[in-house]
Amino acid sequence: MITHLPLCSIPNPKKVLVIGGGDGGVLREVSRHSSVEKIDICEIDKMVVDVSIQFFPKVAVGYDDPRVTLHIGDGVAFLKDVPEGTYDAVIVDSSDPVGPAQELFEKPFFQSVAKALRPGGVVCTQAESIWLHMHIIEDIVANCRQVFKGSVNYAWTSVPTYPSGVIGFMLCSTEGPAVDFKHPVNPIDADYSHVSTKGPLRFYNSEIHSAAFCLPSFAKRVIESKAN
Amino acid sequence: MITHLPLCSIPNPKKVLVIGGGDGGVLREVSRHSSVEKIDICEIDKMVVDVSIQFFPKVAVGYDDPRVTLHIGDGVAFLKDVPEGTYDAVIVDSSDPVGPAQELFEKPFFQSVAKALRPGGVVCTQAESIWLHMHIIEDIVANCRQVFKGSVNYAWTSVPTYPSGVIGFMLCSTEGPAVDFKHPVNPIDADYSHVSTKGPLRFYNSEIHSAAFCLPSFAKRVIESKAN
Repeated sequence: MITHLPLCSIPNPKKVLVIGGGDGGVLREVSRHSSVEKIDICEIDKMVVDVSIQFFPKVAVGYDDPRVTLHIGDGVAFLKDVPEGTYDAVIVDSSDPVGPAQELFEKPFFQSVAKALRPGGVVCTQAESIWLHMHIIEDIVANCRQVFKGSVNYAWTSVPTYPSGVIGFMLCSTEGPAVDFKHPVNPIDADYSHVSTKGPLRFYNSEIHSAAFCLPSFAKRVIESKAN
Repeated sequence: MITHLPLCSIPNPKKVLVIGGGDGGVLREVSRHSSVEKIDICEIDKMVVDVSIQFFPKVAVGYDDPRVTLHIGDGVAFLKDVPEGTYDAVIVDSSDPVGPAQELFEKPFFQSVAKALRPGGVVCTQAESIWLHMHIIEDIVANCRQVFKGSVNYAWTSVPTYPSGVIGFMLCSTEGPAVDFKHPVNPIDADYSHVSTKGPLRFYNSEIHSAAFCLPSFAKRVIESKAN
């Protein structure tokens, strides 16, 4: 979801940056998109990469794609050196906002992401659980609304192994060509070029994509109150 | 969800039967619907009712509604005495299909429910987790397709306290006026008559209603394979 929600929302994504996601799972999903030409990944912890390659080959298979370049380092620092307008999409597959991942939920980081994106480019960041973290989500939404001048949305999905069984995402776009995240323009359902090597998609489809933006009333009230 | 998914899918529900649901939570939600004139509940275990009234007053508040008649007994037996075509909606708020609730997932029970419903009446039954119980769900869907000659659908929602964080529902209608469960015709969002006594709805809204019918691909494949 963290991959296809942004990549299916824009036509022909070509350059993608993944921050975090060292296990390779996001890479595997990005590489299903045949329009993509270049995939950079910046993971802070090399051991995550090594352990995934050794023990989780079906996840780490993402590293086999020749379009992938792995950078070991701090995503915040990495972004500072990225020329303005480089990427069509940035995917932030981070852990919770505690310790090293804290910065990835703050305004300066979002500003760096916005700068690294082309006009009308998109970002998808891990954004916690509506059942457990509404106070954090409230702050993330407020930060994003200040930084991203295109569209700012919250989506969520079911992940049974995560606390409370759900995870959320912020989906934002920069000023430029409008992005309507709720109605994917680049469906992956019909593209089977990726299926033979990675297996069919077991969860994502266009209906699930749109449904992810439908929020329970309690969450909607908080998130929409940040709209102005 | 187990209440508003069926009741918002038909115009002016008047007579509703709840099977199980002894805690009173479903009653509380049914009673938000001002068109409803009669609410029967058949709970097998009187202690569930007593404990809920004593310790969970915000849930058991459903029993305060004068439209409610409580029957203590076996839902399967109760249904046998219900005159044909009595109810607009039946809600089966059961536990898992083990022990006393086993029968509530089998074909003879669904046949009794269908008989108790008016033409174009609706049933909503608890239908397990797509993450844990696809084999059970497959059977329930097959049974329902044989019995309910209107429409047969699977919906799901997030409940963080349940195993795997989700719960599913079968939404079926009998032969008669067509019911399009995915597009609620009787939205409760705009009706605030119920808010003062029971508090506003915190989860359900019409968008969440429709989104509940969007299934992950792995579940969709199994459920739709039962379509013929």
